[in-house]
Amino acid sequence: MTAGDLPKGFRAGAAAANFKKAGRDDLGLVVSEFPCAVAGLFTQNAFRAAPVQVCREILRKGKPVRAVLANAGQANACTGGQGLDNCRTTQRMVAEKTGLAPEEILPLSTGVIGRQLPMDRWAAAVPELVNSLGARDAEGFARAFMTTDAFPKFAARDLDLGSGQVRLTVMAKGAGMICPDMATMLCVALTDAAVERRLWQAMFRRAVNKTFNRVSVDGDTSTNDTILGLANGASGISVGAEADIVLFEEALGEILGDVAYMLVKDGEGASKVIHIRVKGARNDADAELAARSVGHSQLVKTAIYGGDANWGRIVTAVGYSGAAFKPVDVSLALCGIERFSRGQPVNDDREEDLARLLKAVDIHVDITLGDGPGAYMFLASDLGHEYVSLNAEYRS
Amino acid sequence: MTAGDLPKGFRAGAAAANFKKAGRDDLGLVVSEFPCAVAGLFTQNAFRAAPVQVCREILRKGKPVRAVLANAGQANACTGGQGLDNCRTTQRMVAEKTGLAPEEILPLSTGVIGRQLPMDRWAAAVPELVNSLGARDAEGFARAFMTTDAFPKFAARDLDLGSGQVRLTVMAKGAGMICPDMATMLCVALTDAAVERRLWQAMFRRAVNKTFNRVSVDGDTSTNDTILGLANGASGISVGAEADIVLFEEALGEILGDVAYMLVKDGEGASKVIHIRVKGARNDADAELAARSVGHSQLVKTAIYGGDANWGRIVTAVGYSGAAFKPVDVSLALCGIERFSRGQPVNDDREEDLARLLKAVDIHVDITLGDGPGAYMFLASDLGHEYVSLNAEYRS
Repeated sequence: MTAGDLPKGFRAGAAAANFKKAGRDDLGLVVSEFPCAVAGLFTQNAFRAAPVQVCREILRKGKPVRAVLANAGQANACTGGQGLDNCRTTQRMVAEKTGLAPEEILPLSTGVIGRQLPMDRWAAAVPELVNSLGARDAEGFARAFMTTDAFPKFAARDLDLGSGQVRLTVMAKGAGMICPDMATMLCVALTDAAVERRLWQAMFRRAVNKTFNRVSVDGDTSTNDTILGLANGASGISVGAEADIVLFEEALGEILGDVAYMLVKDGEGASKVIHIRVKGARNDADAELAARSVGHSQLVKTAIYGGDANWGRIVTAVGYSGAAFKPVDVSLALCGIERFSRGQPVNDDREEDLARLLKAVDIHVDITLGDGPGAYMFLASDLGHEYVSLNAEYRS
Repeated sequence: MTAGDLPKGFRAGAAAANFKKAGRDDLGLVVSEFPCAVAGLFTQNAFRAAPVQVCREILRKGKPVRAVLANAGQANACTGGQGLDNCRTTQRMVAEKTGLAPEEILPLSTGVIGRQLPMDRWAAAVPELVNSLGARDAEGFARAFMTTDAFPKFAARDLDLGSGQVRLTVMAKGAGMICPDMATMLCVALTDAAVERRLWQAMFRRAVNKTFNRVSVDGDTSTNDTILGLANGASGISVGAEADIVLFEEALGEILGDVAYMLVKDGEGASKVIHIRVKGARNDADAELAARSVGHSQLVKTAIYGGDANWGRIVTAVGYSGAAFKPVDVSLALCGIERFSRGQPVNDDREEDLARLLKAVDIHVDITLGDGPGAYMFLASDLGHEYVSLNAEYRS
């Protein structure tokens, strides 16, 4: 199997509905042959897009689902009652052509906020969409919900459990508005293992907290952020034994971590991935405060973009993070070279080495706040001209 | 009198010490003929620069002061014990040449973090600096502590109190690292009124909360932010009567507001000033959360830079601000045109008008969260290519 292959029992399709640009897939559908246990996590933004509201309704009911329907072009957010009606209409359109029930279809939308879905284009595209089922792989589905993404994001993993092999496939989009807390964009994880719904949700939440919730491009939380997991049991293998649960959750964390890294690497206009590791904090919460503060600092992000070893800006961001520490206990290494030790600059003569090391794509920032047990790891993108260009011109 | 004239009893000087660029003033001094009541507010960053530590010591003692000594080029932050020693040495250098006591001289530094002051250049420049006293005005002093500032920031106001006229003159620098809370850079306010120290500090704190603490360029709090007020009483007019206190504090708020506006207008690489006004919130704190969230959103700031009427990003930033409200109660106007009303888009046909209005320098964003009494006003800069260029290349 390749990374593009879906787990057993899933088929994907896509169509060009001309929502934004003509001639490229902007509508995707994945359908399971069998009912799926579903897990989901959603944006914490108070303005929840219509598809987020509909997905949350479905998950609250706790019933099995069969499909995910995703579009680019319009976010269907801040669109009021009409937006919600339109979202339900798209479910019905696909239900009619597939024989599924509307409430078995989870909608996802991404794109411009505040515009209504162009329902005539939906009506025109849905037949082609359903006909294409089986004609796309994970990459094809991932391409269908790309917006400013530079590349489609997907990954897969085969896993040997006690009683046989299962597959996990993850497809995601996101290259901006990626932020702390529910750090997402759109992400769909599929598996042909059978997993009990509550266990699946619990594993999912833990894995997302360790991965997606630790990345940042620009700190903005979208109205549409959604991450869904569908487990259809088509492999005939059940994740229930303690050892299998451990293996499965570990694999889930790894694959979500791979995709989260892709999201930062493809941060809108980003050229580098900043790996921020904080240790020695009083507790994990303080380490997190410091790591997020550095990861969100515009001044740090532009310095890294410019290849400037400006460690003073990193120390400054730690200083205003709200984390508790004594300045004289703080040390910092950039690209493995210590530049600040116990409150004072060191290795001033290593600037040339640093300038060379800062040309890498992956930039490591290691911060020690003291000798406490608290630690945290956070991924952030840099901030360059391409970010400004993309975001100053996104709608037009 | 012109805006550049200092209040009675103050003289300013400057010198080119070649700290960063040759041939421009980068060392400034203002000296009062009479002892001054001093007020001060400082950065909340845990890493306090050496001059911030020294100023705080002086203010804690509560004794009158006589002078402010400011340099550009080095921030003298994150420089440990040696940085503190160097700072005290600069006080002594100036004290020797002026006859003042070292602890009567308040030091201010701005520039690159983590480098020690070049003490030989200080020693070479201080005689010229002291000789120049009286040869510079408010603009000349403001120029001496500019870093990436595009223009010097200063303002003055003459004020008729019950018993006569007094003058307020404010000089500031700052074009980056300007942020919430103690939102500053360096700022010095001088007056020839006599004001009792505790009253002066209380008026100062209130005026700063309404002005400097409501502006943002990039949300980073510097290690060096300092705002000082010196009142020398040289006018012979005392601010003590209730009516005078009201007049004086109002003027102080106005002049600090003028300078705070200049700081945002000159935000590093900024081309526009975004005026964010939130009303109808449950309380002022919620209004503040919403206003700050919008003012710090990279996506909002790049859209405004690009002249894109992307009100959806503004609504999104309100949505993740943490402020309490019902989405259906929220309305938003951009440049005076309502685009979102009670949870739904309106005036879709006004996009062309908006595109034209967005070419202005001052952009007004008016947000209504409901019908509560809470309100807040916040100024933010946009985010464009010039910001990235300046900050990616600042050190080199």
